[in-house]
Amino acid sequence: MTEDDLIAQIRDRLRDVAADRLLVGIGDDAAAWQPRSHQRSVVTTDALVEGVHFTRAAMRPDEVGHRALAANLSDIAAMGARPVLATVALGLPRDCDPAWVLAMYDGIAALARRARCAIAGGDVTRAPAVTLALTVVGEVRASNLKRRDGALPGDVVAVTGALGASQAGLFVAVERPALAGEPAAAPALAAYRTPEPRLREGRWLGASRHVRAMMDTSDGLSTDLARLCAASGVGAVVETVPVADAARAVASLVEADAQAWALHGGEDFELLLSVERRAFAHLAARFRAHFGRPLHAVGHVTEGAGVRLANGDAIPAAGWDSLQ
Amino acid sequence: MTEDDLIAQIRDRLRDVAADRLLVGIGDDAAAWQPRSHQRSVVTTDALVEGVHFTRAAMRPDEVGHRALAANLSDIAAMGARPVLATVALGLPRDCDPAWVLAMYDGIAALARRARCAIAGGDVTRAPAVTLALTVVGEVRASNLKRRDGALPGDVVAVTGALGASQAGLFVAVERPALAGEPAAAPALAAYRTPEPRLREGRWLGASRHVRAMMDTSDGLSTDLARLCAASGVGAVVETVPVADAARAVASLVEADAQAWALHGGEDFELLLSVERRAFAHLAARFRAHFGRPLHAVGHVTEGAGVRLANGDAIPAAGWDSLQ
Repeated sequence: MTEDDLIAQIRDRLRDVAADRLLVGIGDDAAAWQPRSHQRSVVTTDALVEGVHFTRAAMRPDEVGHRALAANLSDIAAMGARPVLATVALGLPRDCDPAWVLAMYDGIAALARRARCAIAGGDVTRAPAVTLALTVVGEVRASNLKRRDGALPGDVVAVTGALGASQAGLFVAVERPALAGEPAAAPALAAYRTPEPRLREGRWLGASRHVRAMMDTSDGLSTDLARLCAASGVGAVVETVPVADAARAVASLVEADAQAWALHGGEDFELLLSVERRAFAHLAARFRAHFGRPLHAVGHVTEGAGVRLANGDAIPAAGWDSLQ
Repeated sequence: MTEDDLIAQIRDRLRDVAADRLLVGIGDDAAAWQPRSHQRSVVTTDALVEGVHFTRAAMRPDEVGHRALAANLSDIAAMGARPVLATVALGLPRDCDPAWVLAMYDGIAALARRARCAIAGGDVTRAPAVTLALTVVGEVRASNLKRRDGALPGDVVAVTGALGASQAGLFVAVERPALAGEPAAAPALAAYRTPEPRLREGRWLGASRHVRAMMDTSDGLSTDLARLCAASGVGAVVETVPVADAARAVASLVEADAQAWALHGGEDFELLLSVERRAFAHLAARFRAHFGRPLHAVGHVTEGAGVRLANGDAIPAAGWDSLQ
């Protein structure tokens, strides 16, 4: 199959993906759109590499596509923004079946449709391993744009969901593949393979002036909270880490420490935020009423630097480092 | 070096790269900017892969960085737009020296400064080969946005520069590395390693309503003109192919066919356009007065489909196919 043939098939596949805001879509030198007036634009990029983030044996092509887009959408959510469009730079080894590539695009397309994110263009090239570098552009009202550098001492640190499920799923997929068929492992595997970006939550939290800083938990709570603190010039104490039921279920199967997965495990793609203390209870009650699940307080922001446990122990940032 | 250390060093390196339009830059979940009102936004993505597009032996790191950004800026130029910002998704093998990476960013930064393109963010991950997937966002007035599907029968087909130099440089670098020190090969090697995107020319041509279609020559005139024709539902006849002096110089060293390099060789990153016939002479005269070099007529648009030579022979699209 030639490059032009493959691009034509991809384009057919993506024809119905919310493209009403695109003036020029796939097939030209660049895609074009009309930004909403009086809004800010945001852009993020995130790559998935075969053998580093996934294997073709352990993950279906549609799951790989979903996961690549989800990681980017999670960054858009963390800014308080909504997605507008995505581009896909795809590297393919010679042994990669075109059917695998099209199924991978189906995974991207299914999530893109739900997220109302157009697929605007891309690039296809040879590469030694399957490589998906996605970029997503989003939009947000200036007043709703959230950064990670606004946390203040006294704030409540919170997350939008319990943690550790994705790390538990990765553990099963990589270390205990024989357990992949166990019903108890299914929710963790789903969390790992098809994480759900918190787009609605991000926009809702973005609209609250009491949310002073926000980011997503892509590299683990310990690493990401340390980054939020460093950006804000503050420290934090972690009092309670909400552990996902899916992580507990796997931990009881394999006698592992679900608490450690929740504290250090990456790619849960929940939102991590710093909330003005006096507003937290009311915000959390409204969050629960709106989304039907809790906004979990995990600790509070302090003067100084570094992240510690309630007993005073420093937490090493043992989460994911892309270069280790 | 950890991911956070490397990102901190990259960020330092890029601190002065035209970032005045960024509201949020490198280091947050996403970058943010304010689009100019009443303009359209454009986005393009293009990847360079070690072993496919370059080798660390044959190209300096700053040249790799320059080339990756230049390929994307060329697509922005082809839309009639100017660049606003770029993101960089970088894949690094374990054997890649941090100094190499920082020098590569110096190459990106030097071109970005000249092009007034901010480096807004990125992603760093492990990969089996050095992989640079860049995305560039640009802006253009709605009336100046050029697509590749507007060519009409009778139009003059033109290019913004003579062709074949990049292919001649690639030939020297890959097939005749012993000649890389020859003064006669230097201009071709420079065209291959540090191509200059036609940003000023693209904006100038974008402002002319007589330019009905435009794209860049990234995969070779034969391939790219066939794409422009297919998008526009027309055919074309090629009458004269302007051959770059740099390509002729290499061809005479190695007894190769400079004409074939000019017709089929990729990555010259010139602009290919379709111009209303009655306006061409005036446009070309103004182009020469403005830029000090000619706008080359290469042929004309016909009814039907396919690209032929003046003698009636069909031209096979023998240019670059990223998947072959």
